[in-house]
Amino acid sequence: MPDSTSIAALVNRLRQGDLRALARAISLVENEAPESSALLSACFPHAGRTLRIGITGAPGAGKSTLVDRLAQLYRHANRTVGGLAVDPTSPFTGGAILGDRIRLREHASDPDFYFRSMATRGSLGGLALATADVALVLEASGKDVLLIETVGVGQDEIEIARLADITLVVLVPGMGDDVQSLKAGVMEIADIFVINKADRDGVDRVEQEIRALQSLATTHTAWTPPIVRTIATNGEGIDKLGAAISELEQWMDKENRLAERRARHWQRRIDAMLRAELMRRARRHGLNETQLSDHATQVAAGQEDPWQLVAQLTENLFQEKTSEP
Amino acid sequence: MPDSTSIAALVNRLRQGDLRALARAISLVENEAPESSALLSACFPHAGRTLRIGITGAPGAGKSTLVDRLAQLYRHANRTVGGLAVDPTSPFTGGAILGDRIRLREHASDPDFYFRSMATRGSLGGLALATADVALVLEASGKDVLLIETVGVGQDEIEIARLADITLVVLVPGMGDDVQSLKAGVMEIADIFVINKADRDGVDRVEQEIRALQSLATTHTAWTPPIVRTIATNGEGIDKLGAAISELEQWMDKENRLAERRARHWQRRIDAMLRAELMRRARRHGLNETQLSDHATQVAAGQEDPWQLVAQLTENLFQEKTSEP
Repeated sequence: MPDSTSIAALVNRLRQGDLRALARAISLVENEAPESSALLSACFPHAGRTLRIGITGAPGAGKSTLVDRLAQLYRHANRTVGGLAVDPTSPFTGGAILGDRIRLREHASDPDFYFRSMATRGSLGGLALATADVALVLEASGKDVLLIETVGVGQDEIEIARLADITLVVLVPGMGDDVQSLKAGVMEIADIFVINKADRDGVDRVEQEIRALQSLATTHTAWTPPIVRTIATNGEGIDKLGAAISELEQWMDKENRLAERRARHWQRRIDAMLRAELMRRARRHGLNETQLSDHATQVAAGQEDPWQLVAQLTENLFQEKTSEP
Repeated sequence: MPDSTSIAALVNRLRQGDLRALARAISLVENEAPESSALLSACFPHAGRTLRIGITGAPGAGKSTLVDRLAQLYRHANRTVGGLAVDPTSPFTGGAILGDRIRLREHASDPDFYFRSMATRGSLGGLALATADVALVLEASGKDVLLIETVGVGQDEIEIARLADITLVVLVPGMGDDVQSLKAGVMEIADIFVINKADRDGVDRVEQEIRALQSLATTHTAWTPPIVRTIATNGEGIDKLGAAISELEQWMDKENRLAERRARHWQRRIDAMLRAELMRRARRHGLNETQLSDHATQVAAGQEDPWQLVAQLTENLFQEKTSEP
C-alpha cells in the first residue's frame, strides 16, 4: 500500500497530464483499493472546476455518437475533455467496450481527450458512488468538461445523472412509446432535451409529447428545458446543442444554481460515503462474508430472528470500538 | 407507539384473517414506523411457508393480467393468495393504481385474495427492503402463494425479483428488440420464461432468441428455464404455466434448492437491514438532515474535505455509544 508521499506523487503526475498515472489512479478508485480514500482526498482540492455534463436516455438513442460530437465541439474550442461511460447492466452486451474502440480510433492522438468506460455492476447504489469517485479523479486531472454517459434509463442511471451539473436527456423519434416510455424520474432530471436522429419520421410528435409532459409537471422552475434537434451521425445540430448548454451555464451562474446543485449532490454523496464506511467496519466486526452466510442460513431455517440479530450485530459493533485501529 | 402487547394483538388479528389489521400492519411497515422492527419480528415465526413467485418483464407485457390469472388458478385450487405490485418509478404513471382498481372489481368478494400495490420510490435499495418487509407481513397472514409483480426491468426490479422463490420473466412478441432489450441481469434471474400475447406474430422468433441466449449463458445449472406461451387476456396457457411452476417447486424440493435460495435472499437482506440500522444511528448522532445539508454546502464550496468528514463522523458516532438508549 503506497504511503502518503507516493499518493501525492501519483496525483501530481496525473495533474501534469500523465495518462498512465491517471489510468492507475482511476483503477485504484474503481477497485476500492485501501488507498482509495487518501487518493480521493488528495484529488479533492484540485476538483470542482469542471463542468460535468450528464447524457442519458434509452438504449439506441445514439448517446455515444452524441458524446463524441460534443467532445469534438469542446476540443475545437480548446477545452480539455474527459469522458465516462457507465453501463450498470452487465458486461455481456459489450456496448461499452465497442464504444471504447470507436472512440480510441477517433481520439487516440489527442492527449486532452481521455475516455473511460465503467461496466462494474457492484451493489445497488455502489455504482453511483464509484462513478462519482472516478469523475473526481478526472476532474483533478484538469479537464474543463466531463461528459458522463449512462446506458439505459433506470434508477441507477438517474442516480448517476445526478452527479452532473447539467443533464441532457436524449430521445429519438419512432421508438415505441417514445416519451411515455421514459420513467418520470428521467423527465425530472432533464435540463435539456435532445431529439437525436431528427431526420426520422415522428420528430414533431416527440417534441409535442415532451411539451405536453412539461405542461403537466407539478414543479415549475425558472428554467424550462429547451428541446434541441440533432443528427449526431453527421454533426447536425451539435452547435445549437453547445449553445443551449452555454445558455444554461450562464443562467446557473447568474442564479447561483451551480453551487446549490453541487451541494445537493454532496448531500447524497456524503450520505453514501458514510454508509459505505460504516459497513466496512461492520464487515470487520462480526459480519464478514462467512459470518453473514452462516446467519443467513440460520434465519432462512427460521432458527434466528433477523431483527434481533441486527440489533445484536449493531451492539457488538459499538462494543468493539476500542479495538478499532 | 403501541407496546409489545398491542403488536402481538395486531399480528394475532392479521393471522386470523382480519383484513383491516393486515392493511394496518403493512402500512406501519411500509412507512417504517418506529414499531416496524418489533412488528416484523413478531411476524417472522409465522412466515416462511409461502411460495413467493416473482413476475417481471418489460412494461406492456401484460404482467398484471397474468398475475390476475395466476391468482384465479391458485384460488380455484383452494390456495390463499397475496399479491404485491411494485412500481419503483413514480406515482405519476398511475399504472399501479389502475391495476388496483381492476383487481378490486374482480376479487373484492374473495377474502383469501389480498392485493396491495407499492409505488413508494424511496432511496436506492430501500424499495427492495420495504417490499421484502411487506411480503413478510403478507406471509405471516397465512397466504399459500404470494405473487410479486414488478413494473419494468431495471436494477431495482432485479433486486425485488430476488425476494422470490421462483421468478417468471414475461416477454411479448413484436416489442422492438424483444429479448435483446432485456438486461442481462433479468435473463439470469429467470426460472421460467413466459411469452405472453402468444397469438401475436413473431412468437417463434422470441422463443428462438431466448434459446439462443440460453445457449450462450456461461453458467449452466441443472434447471433449464422452460418457455411457456400464454394469452393472459383469455386465460390460454395459464394451466401450463401453473404446471411449469409446480414442476419447478418439486425439483427445488428434491434438490433442496429452496433453502439455498432463501439463505441467499437473507444474506442480502440482513446486510441491507444492518446498513439501514447503522444509518438510523448516524442520523441521530451528528448527521441529521440539517447537519448533512450544512456539511454538503461546505464540501461543495471546497471548504471541507468529505473523506476527512466521513472519518470524523464515524469516529463521533462510536464515541456517542454511551448515550445510546
